[in-house]
Amino acid sequence: MTFIKTPTKGMRDLLPSDMELREYVLNLLKDTYKSFGFTLVSTPSLEHIENLTGRNGGDNEKLIFKVLKRGEKLDINNISDPDDLVDSGLRYDLTVPLTRFYANNMNLLPKPFRALQIGNVWRAEKNQKGRFREFMQCDLDILGEKSNIAEIELISAVITFLKKLDFKGFTIRINDRRILEGIMNSINFPVEKREQILIELDKLDKIGIDGVKEELLNLELDSNSINKFLDAFNGNVTLESFSNTFNLDESIISNLKEIMDTSKELTNSNIVFDPTLVRGMGYYTGPIFEIGVEDVGFSIGGGGRYDKLVEKFINAPTPAVGFSVGFERLTLILSERGFKVPSNKEKIAYLISDDADKKEVFKKAMLDRESNKIVKIVNKSKNFKFQAEELEKEGYIIK
Amino acid sequence: MTFIKTPTKGMRDLLPSDMELREYVLNLLKDTYKSFGFTLVSTPSLEHIENLTGRNGGDNEKLIFKVLKRGEKLDINNISDPDDLVDSGLRYDLTVPLTRFYANNMNLLPKPFRALQIGNVWRAEKNQKGRFREFMQCDLDILGEKSNIAEIELISAVITFLKKLDFKGFTIRINDRRILEGIMNSINFPVEKREQILIELDKLDKIGIDGVKEELLNLELDSNSINKFLDAFNGNVTLESFSNTFNLDESIISNLKEIMDTSKELTNSNIVFDPTLVRGMGYYTGPIFEIGVEDVGFSIGGGGRYDKLVEKFINAPTPAVGFSVGFERLTLILSERGFKVPSNKEKIAYLISDDADKKEVFKKAMLDRESNKIVKIVNKSKNFKFQAEELEKEGYIIK
Repeated sequence: MTFIKTPTKGMRDLLPSDMELREYVLNLLKDTYKSFGFTLVSTPSLEHIENLTGRNGGDNEKLIFKVLKRGEKLDINNISDPDDLVDSGLRYDLTVPLTRFYANNMNLLPKPFRALQIGNVWRAEKNQKGRFREFMQCDLDILGEKSNIAEIELISAVITFLKKLDFKGFTIRINDRRILEGIMNSINFPVEKREQILIELDKLDKIGIDGVKEELLNLELDSNSINKFLDAFNGNVTLESFSNTFNLDESIISNLKEIMDTSKELTNSNIVFDPTLVRGMGYYTGPIFEIGVEDVGFSIGGGGRYDKLVEKFINAPTPAVGFSVGFERLTLILSERGFKVPSNKEKIAYLISDDADKKEVFKKAMLDRESNKIVKIVNKSKNFKFQAEELEKEGYIIK
Repeated sequence: MTFIKTPTKGMRDLLPSDMELREYVLNLLKDTYKSFGFTLVSTPSLEHIENLTGRNGGDNEKLIFKVLKRGEKLDINNISDPDDLVDSGLRYDLTVPLTRFYANNMNLLPKPFRALQIGNVWRAEKNQKGRFREFMQCDLDILGEKSNIAEIELISAVITFLKKLDFKGFTIRINDRRILEGIMNSINFPVEKREQILIELDKLDKIGIDGVKEELLNLELDSNSINKFLDAFNGNVTLESFSNTFNLDESIISNLKEIMDTSKELTNSNIVFDPTLVRGMGYYTGPIFEIGVEDVGFSIGGGGRYDKLVEKFINAPTPAVGFSVGFERLTLILSERGFKVPSNKEKIAYLISDDADKKEVFKKAMLDRESNKIVKIVNKSKNFKFQAEELEKEGYIIK
């Protein structure tokens, strides 16, 4: 007994019941998204460390699991910085790898390209209930589509999927990064502070308007400008009032209206313009959105347009929109709701003792399996009664 | 353009056509193995470094991707050994993690437990055609079953799966680690050299009998004993002749005979006793086997009994047998054979121009998807003819 039987810190073992639910949800998800023309792709779990630390992952970049160089490349006698020791890291999301993938393979892919990615990502976060250091993400992305067909199709696909899991009462909050930029422009906030200003605004629902104000004062912004900025998000704001007050570009407003209007009709959801919606990642360039459902206190998915990310890999302007549902959150909610995975296959357990004619039992079992049954053959134990009870709990009929 | 668009060394991007084949094979595999009562489980990609370097992984332990410690635990000023820098590593197989999983969760699992694992593993191997540093493994294991029901069910399950992919002409080579041990015993090879002797014997098909002899001489073994040992594998050996020559335990022989006999009848395969079969891993304790198929020059799966591994985690003797098909090999063979994934869904592409009534098209598309069609909506491009051709190549009907 020299080994450690618990999983590595912040990670977890998934039991058969966990996996059954996850597989059910994933199959529904794949079927639904495929019906929207999305096709699966996959990228390596490890990415070049350069790609992971290029300031596109926001705070996630602080949480990278870094992988030690190997062989002669690892020189522990000449280290000035821990980063001298590493050449790759575990991906912290699926978006950065997807843009690398697209840049690397675009000549082999349809244009526009509808990508479905299902894969694990890793973040060395502090221990927290319901948060894991390895978790699954399911991302939908449309690359190479400049029109809002991309946003509308993504929202429709995700809501169609969620409805199949009996989620109800959808609220889609929507904003456009260019609106936030337009407001900061009209207030003359210094360009170099804008990324940080948005990070502070993003904390609104956690620390309230006074909290945000304090953080903005810490950025040494003019107090009048801060008040003007925060007033913008106070009270009953509409897309129209915003547009008038801040003299925003008409095409941005009409684009957003069309997305909202069409998505509302297609998905029968509540679509709300929310100018305080920021979303953390630095790479968003246009419409951004988040989905909430009835009786759940947090958003269960979100996404947005990131038209400039592929260009970091190749000289080919590539519009792109992505949407990710929180797969771990979804399955957690379902399991807390006592969701039962539908199952209709008959399950049979053959118990055989050491001296029985095994061959005949094996043959019967093979025939049962061919006729769509689930069959286990088990060595009959001394405590037969207990054994039978346990098998019946699993849903097996004893033969 | 500051980013690197190629995958990290030795790893690969999987395109939609790759993923389509992989998904098809995985779905068949899951369905088949589930019909044998196996249930999916999953373990973290990262394992405690202690568990990975405990001499159960054979040469694979040299190939571990090690993960840098984080935060205060990483002290680059006091390193005497690169291992001071790491606390975990990417798993190099699924067997070590499974035994940890079983030790950690056995009270929540049926006994015996039939586990199906599908997951990536990582090995920093030298670049070689068809070998990747991240690849998928599909492992079947039965834990807690001491009888040969385990071996027979595993062999049956794997052959049933392979038949569904139209593989033919199966040859199952089979041996028992205790037979090899018995031979080495009768020859009086020193106990401490036996692990290494088996590693050399395992090279027989690569370096021939003279090559193995040379390696064994390097181990400073008595030359007469070496000749006696190697003679054992020369010529027409049968389980019976072996048993007589080396006075092997009758229960080991009859157990192996029953496995061979029953598997032959159940799977209609060629079952061959092969005393030179070793299989690399140090943890095997009983029957071991490998599967070959017609027209393929390497084995496409293998496994064996490892009754002592779980005990490295907990004081609970736990018999165990595992079987793994080479998923990457399988999909490579299928794609070289031009295997086409069956598909019967109608695919429709709606091309719409910027000024069209989008909403109506979106609504039609939603209805099509409800009636089991695959539908993409695409912005009509200036070069419409080329766009239509490309969509038709993908199998879409243009509307």
